[in-house]
Amino acid sequence: MSGSSFGKAFNITTFGESHGKSIGVVIQGCPPGLAIDANSIQKALDKRKPGSGIAGTKRKEPDIANIQSGIFEGKTTGTPISIFIENQDANSKSYDKIKSLFRPGHGDITYQAKYGVRDYRGGGRASARETAARVAAGAIAQLILDQENIKIDTYTIEIGGIKAKPILDLSNIKKSQLQCPDLEASIKMEERIKKVKSKGDSLGGVVEIIVKNVPAGLGDPVFDKLDAELAKGLMSIGAVKAVEIGSGIQSSQMTGFENNDEILPSGFKSNHAGGILAGISNGDDIIAKVHVKPIPSILKIQHSIDVEGNPVEISTEGRHDICAIPRINKVCEAMVSIVLADHLLRQKSISGYLDS
Amino acid sequence: MSGSSFGKAFNITTFGESHGKSIGVVIQGCPPGLAIDANSIQKALDKRKPGSGIAGTKRKEPDIANIQSGIFEGKTTGTPISIFIENQDANSKSYDKIKSLFRPGHGDITYQAKYGVRDYRGGGRASARETAARVAAGAIAQLILDQENIKIDTYTIEIGGIKAKPILDLSNIKKSQLQCPDLEASIKMEERIKKVKSKGDSLGGVVEIIVKNVPAGLGDPVFDKLDAELAKGLMSIGAVKAVEIGSGIQSSQMTGFENNDEILPSGFKSNHAGGILAGISNGDDIIAKVHVKPIPSILKIQHSIDVEGNPVEISTEGRHDICAIPRINKVCEAMVSIVLADHLLRQKSISGYLDS
Amino acid sequence: MSGSSFGKAFNITTFGESHGKSIGVVIQGCPPGLAIDANSIQKALDKRKPGSGIAGTKRKEPDIANIQSGIFEGKTTGTPISIFIENQDANSKSYDKIKSLFRPGHGDITYQAKYGVRDYRGGGRASARETAARVAAGAIAQLILDQENIKIDTYTIEIGGIKAKPILDLSNIKKSQLQCPDLEASIKMEERIKKVKSKGDSLGGVVEIIVKNVPAGLGDPVFDKLDAELAKGLMSIGAVKAVEIGSGIQSSQMTGFENNDEILPSGFKSNHAGGILAGISNGDDIIAKVHVKPIPSILKIQHSIDVEGNPVEISTEGRHDICAIPRINKVCEAMVSIVLADHLLRQKSISGYLDS
Amino acid sequence: MSGSSFGKAFNITTFGESHGKSIGVVIQGCPPGLAIDANSIQKALDKRKPGSGIAGTKRKEPDIANIQSGIFEGKTTGTPISIFIENQDANSKSYDKIKSLFRPGHGDITYQAKYGVRDYRGGGRASARETAARVAAGAIAQLILDQENIKIDTYTIEIGGIKAKPILDLSNIKKSQLQCPDLEASIKMEERIKKVKSKGDSLGGVVEIIVKNVPAGLGDPVFDKLDAELAKGLMSIGAVKAVEIGSGIQSSQMTGFENNDEILPSGFKSNHAGGILAGISNGDDIIAKVHVKPIPSILKIQHSIDVEGNPVEISTEGRHDICAIPRINKVCEAMVSIVLADHLLRQKSISGYLDS
Repeated sequence: MSGSSFGKAFNITTFGESHGKSIGVVIQGCPPGLAIDANSIQKALDKRKPGSGIAGTKRKEPDIANIQSGIFEGKTTGTPISIFIENQDANSKSYDKIKSLFRPGHGDITYQAKYGVRDYRGGGRASARETAARVAAGAIAQLILDQENIKIDTYTIEIGGIKAKPILDLSNIKKSQLQCPDLEASIKMEERIKKVKSKGDSLGGVVEIIVKNVPAGLGDPVFDKLDAELAKGLMSIGAVKAVEIGSGIQSSQMTGFENNDEILPSGFKSNHAGGILAGISNGDDIIAKVHVKPIPSILKIQHSIDVEGNPVEISTEGRHDICAIPRINKVCEAMVSIVLADHLLRQKSISGYLDS
Repeated sequence: MSGSSFGKAFNITTFGESHGKSIGVVIQGCPPGLAIDANSIQKALDKRKPGSGIAGTKRKEPDIANIQSGIFEGKTTGTPISIFIENQDANSKSYDKIKSLFRPGHGDITYQAKYGVRDYRGGGRASARETAARVAAGAIAQLILDQENIKIDTYTIEIGGIKAKPILDLSNIKKSQLQCPDLEASIKMEERIKKVKSKGDSLGGVVEIIVKNVPAGLGDPVFDKLDAELAKGLMSIGAVKAVEIGSGIQSSQMTGFENNDEILPSGFKSNHAGGILAGISNGDDIIAKVHVKPIPSILKIQHSIDVEGNPVEISTEGRHDICAIPRINKVCEAMVSIVLADHLLRQKSISGYLDS
Repeated sequence: MSGSSFGKAFNITTFGESHGKSIGVVIQGCPPGLAIDANSIQKALDKRKPGSGIAGTKRKEPDIANIQSGIFEGKTTGTPISIFIENQDANSKSYDKIKSLFRPGHGDITYQAKYGVRDYRGGGRASARETAARVAAGAIAQLILDQENIKIDTYTIEIGGIKAKPILDLSNIKKSQLQCPDLEASIKMEERIKKVKSKGDSLGGVVEIIVKNVPAGLGDPVFDKLDAELAKGLMSIGAVKAVEIGSGIQSSQMTGFENNDEILPSGFKSNHAGGILAGISNGDDIIAKVHVKPIPSILKIQHSIDVEGNPVEISTEGRHDICAIPRINKVCEAMVSIVLADHLLRQKSISGYLDS
Repeated sequence: MSGSSFGKAFNITTFGESHGKSIGVVIQGCPPGLAIDANSIQKALDKRKPGSGIAGTKRKEPDIANIQSGIFEGKTTGTPISIFIENQDANSKSYDKIKSLFRPGHGDITYQAKYGVRDYRGGGRASARETAARVAAGAIAQLILDQENIKIDTYTIEIGGIKAKPILDLSNIKKSQLQCPDLEASIKMEERIKKVKSKGDSLGGVVEIIVKNVPAGLGDPVFDKLDAELAKGLMSIGAVKAVEIGSGIQSSQMTGFENNDEILPSGFKSNHAGGILAGISNGDDIIAKVHVKPIPSILKIQHSIDVEGNPVEISTEGRHDICAIPRINKVCEAMVSIVLADHLLRQKSISGYLDS
């Protein structure tokens, strides 16, 4: 079944294991004639690249976007765009010792249950490395969003329980090593990361996404609602355990009067809905929150079993992040851009008949 | 585009507006030979039926499951199962006054933006009435789950900010009018509902889902992960604003050591993962939480605009619930059963080749 | 799996057995705002209706298109359009005797092999009655084609080996009981039908389809080529055993110089391609031929087996056509209109970006 | 839209242009644990490789199957299998002169109409080179067919109007340069090819496919019928203009009594149905015929227009085949194997519930 494909009008299919020859993506449905700067894909990949930041892995991958098809003389041609990214620094030897073990919090045990065989090296298909293909696809999706001037900001609002203040100056994102617009909180988060790292443990956190200039009318009732598609896209990212739209959890605690966004001739008075009503964008900013679990690979010793079911003690020494944030932020952005590009094209297919 | 279809191996397509002739569903991919008791569909529909409970609408619909095809002599035949539910008590006149208004918190304004035309009566396709078709489909999905003895419990853990205690005796669910296993909290919730109702306002809350006996190995990497599909299915239900899997939001605040579920020869030591690792079921209970916004239809006067953009004041007098919970619980259960039936059949398609 | 669904942007899902309560279709992706005359669906159904013509069955079905959803105040709303057609004259008793037999040329034996159970009454899902749902969907698809002034002609060019002359005046189609524009051939075909009918046997034939005003550019490389989609759509009609595009079989016997359609500033010099080059419409007429096998239900005694594998002799006395043509012509037209509507909407989704 | 994807349970997505960096395929849904001999993919590709045979192009491509993912230690893992084939001998310069011309019989004019831009080099995405990716995917599909001992024979039965005798000894296929089991006809075909080649012209022909050991029960009513899927798969191959199933065209000329395959306790008495009844395999051999148009690239001068619409004269000197047969035979086999693998897996998903 096509479980590695996503989207209907704008459709991506990814492939690749952490320590295979390459990972990559095939993108279908991208309109022809879009000017593409090869650097834009590279820049997107660089933002997610391993080996950067205080929370990052030591694996060094150049992550070069190698475009194979679908682009000619600097423009999309309308045919499938295929992009590969070679795995160059795959050090598989360090994974030999986990060949027959199931690391807690990892997919080792579930891949074994599902498939009976698995490429255990570096987590195989379950590795976060898979998300590089999503980021490459997101850079193509962004070409479509650019036509509407849609802009996505993704930033850190919580790490290890330390929360950023809600009033945020998004221009601060770039000033923070952790992409947190509350620079004071950012420093505390860094300290928390260092402390937890020194104990051989890891952290999770929360990412917020704001999308500006989304036209009203995107989203297909009743299952392909825009919020349902965002929820799927974001929850499909490895470490994500919860997704909120708009005021999300807070909404469930308010009364209808408090939660409803009253409408004025000038627009909505508030945005608890997060820009989506009845699964369709309402023209206001789309807002989502993504809750990310701590990296499961830790040095601390944990109990587990081997493939025969015998008890073992395990300490994961591989090269891995302490916290998936902020590297995951770019992946969240990519998934949002793919969902929006898909629904922009879907909406085009049914538009323009009304007055005929 | 097929936005009203859901699932790949077990595939449902719903149709219908609140005040149209009927709503219904076509189910494809249901295996042949499953014995079906017509009452089981009816029982499921009755649980979600309007007009019951202190939080419910006054609309009286018998909600009779009218099976048109795909079942012969009490067994599924493998061909599409079509079920209609007639709309009998559609009192469209009370909606005349909102014909040209946009109710805050409703899809009126977004349907107008998307389509340019809309069936405004009772919310049209955006009505919660649409979910009856999901419940009918869920009853068919349950036939497949029954083969594996999979059991889903759905219950209320919060309404209007009043939280149930976490230690829950699920046998209490039936004893509570609000399907809350904490009977003390249930009474407080009832009181809160009455109070808020008297003020012409409405409430939201939180539903928890536990699924037992799910075999390990369900879920397709990387986009059709089991948690991603559950997130989409649940978020696609009208009033849902957030979905958590396992410890969800709490997971993002723990360290890796705290959040990882250690594995013993006897099984997992904890279940922060909610039964899903790397998007694949691990054999433990699947746990999800669904955060539901308050019903947007309220008597309290709110500001809004009409279709020409002029300011209006609006008070929604139609027949509607005060709180989508507990009626929504059965809908959540239906979506979970549909996702699981789909992935059970998907898994069958790739199984059994290993030792060949 | 969704084997009863067809199309991606314009997507239909059919259901129903010959002797079940109803057959029908759910149509997704139809643009909003299209004015719809309920009579147009009825007219289309009437053309395919059983009980008319010298080759037709005696079953009398009013075939009333019962629209359930997706249309409001005479216009499509963009939500799923559901249409049911009740089975009223299902005389199931005459099928009791074939309950445990496999009729030669029918799906009885294959449905049994596939599903293990089957609704044997009137052929169940394999009945030609299923095509009424396609015709209803085709009438909706035609609304989209009307926007482009696309016109489909479908007519008989061969029955029982009697071939119509290739130079055809399409205005004659209506004058022929068999929808054959060669009126002399039509009379011979009628005679052939009468003669074969008197012997308790049946006939097949060939249908030709010409579509005018199809814009260039429809069809998606490489699997969803326009000709591939037409081939699937047409071959999926019960009795069809071969599909030709353009000069088809004749093309395989020509040289490249003979078969290539030279291009002049005024257009193509010939149309061996049948309006499709490399799977994409070229703006010329689309031409296809559909080869239809004889009706398998015959009075003549044939050898067969029962469900236990014992030899039996069988003579099918049910109410059935002698020749699927001309009733199948309208079904062919419907499938072509559905394919074209789908690709018109698909093309819209990628258009308009080139000069941006 | 996903026009370069095919299949639901066994799903392939191809990409690549004739003169881009590479062409390739991503295969989803292949069951885990299948032993794979890398040579088997290579052998399949070698059979379709350009540069062989008297009818072949001069382009020399090693066509090395470069497996990127989804296979580990000689076994499929259940995750997407990605295979690239580099374009090494792409001599784009010879295509400079056709940059702004539309070659008759080619997709140049339709790609321009559809997309507004195109990679004109070597036909871009419309090149027959694209089919190498299908052949690689077919080799993977064959792994699944091997489990059932399903065997596909594909052979030439007509070239340039010269027909092979119907009584065929399939062991002769390998003895014929043109894969024609009638060795006398094969020699005449060769002579015809030489003669036509000397005149700067080209030829078409007919390919027959026989599949043995297909289990009864494959094929999904009503649109995904096995014959409908085969028709789509085969018609989607570049030069194919007609597809017949079983007796095909001949069936339309027979009476029901002649065409029906009577059933004996020992099996079917004849096989006019081509192994498929009501869209579902009946256990007999599946038989299909594929009619292939002559190669449109010819030396003979033809009239055409340039992209501005001016008249031009054109003679195509590139490196191309005289006849797509026999290279296309392997491509037909690949498409059949992909359709069958898909339906084998689909059938598995609904099987085994009957007696529960």
